[in-house]
Amino acid sequence: MATETRETHSLIGSDKVDGTAVYGPDGEKIGSIERVMIDKLSGKVSYAVLSFGGFLGFGDEHYPLPWGSLKYNTALGGYQTMVPVDKFKSAPNYENDAEWDWASPDRSRSVNEYYRGLIV
Amino acid sequence: MATETRETHSLIGSDKVDGTAVYGPDGEKIGSIERVMIDKLSGKVSYAVLSFGGFLGFGDEHYPLPWGSLKYNTALGGYQTMVPVDKFKSAPNYENDAEWDWASPDRSRSVNEYYRGLIV
Repeated sequence: MATETRETHSLIGSDKVDGTAVYGPDGEKIGSIERVMIDKLSGKVSYAVLSFGGFLGFGDEHYPLPWGSLKYNTALGGYQTMVPVDKFKSAPNYENDAEWDWASPDRSRSVNEYYRGLIV
Repeated sequence: MATETRETHSLIGSDKVDGTAVYGPDGEKIGSIERVMIDKLSGKVSYAVLSFGGFLGFGDEHYPLPWGSLKYNTALGGYQTMVPVDKFKSAPNYENDAEWDWASPDRSRSVNEYYRGLIV
């Protein structure tokens, strides 16, 4: 592997975005990005999968979020969401051994609808 | 790892985009995507790093391309570039043991300028 930089102030590599910290509205770390879903045609990130990794009483569930619910905060050095942490309790999610099919329109619709009123 | 789908007709996971096939203007496979560089703030893919992996007389060099030089071709099941293959011979690239610093404006400028007239 070349000694290239895979992260700068403005760019991040697809193999580096996984694991980037996610902060809540108050700036406290709540989890990390497990993966982002890229729209193949437009090249725009559509969703991020958030993992709480045992933080805050959450287990090993994975929470797909619309990309618009995250903003990169250069001061924190990670993504910040303004969705109140307790709203994730009833948000669409899946566990390690459960199936999540991104091809199902119901899946992305449920995510978009759940967060619609929560994105500021 | 959950048995989620990490690729659909329209979405691809950041951990899955690496290795996606890249086809030349005539539809022949010329290499694969090694990584994409995502703009942290906008969430848009800015660059892809193309690896020829020994194809076509190229060695193990890595070729950063503007994202706009690739179009997803659903029939081929991968990205297609209309940049003629021989144009890559003199394109900006780095080898496995060489350094490429994405933070340097010279680097991205050289990529943007080289491909400017070649993107259709």
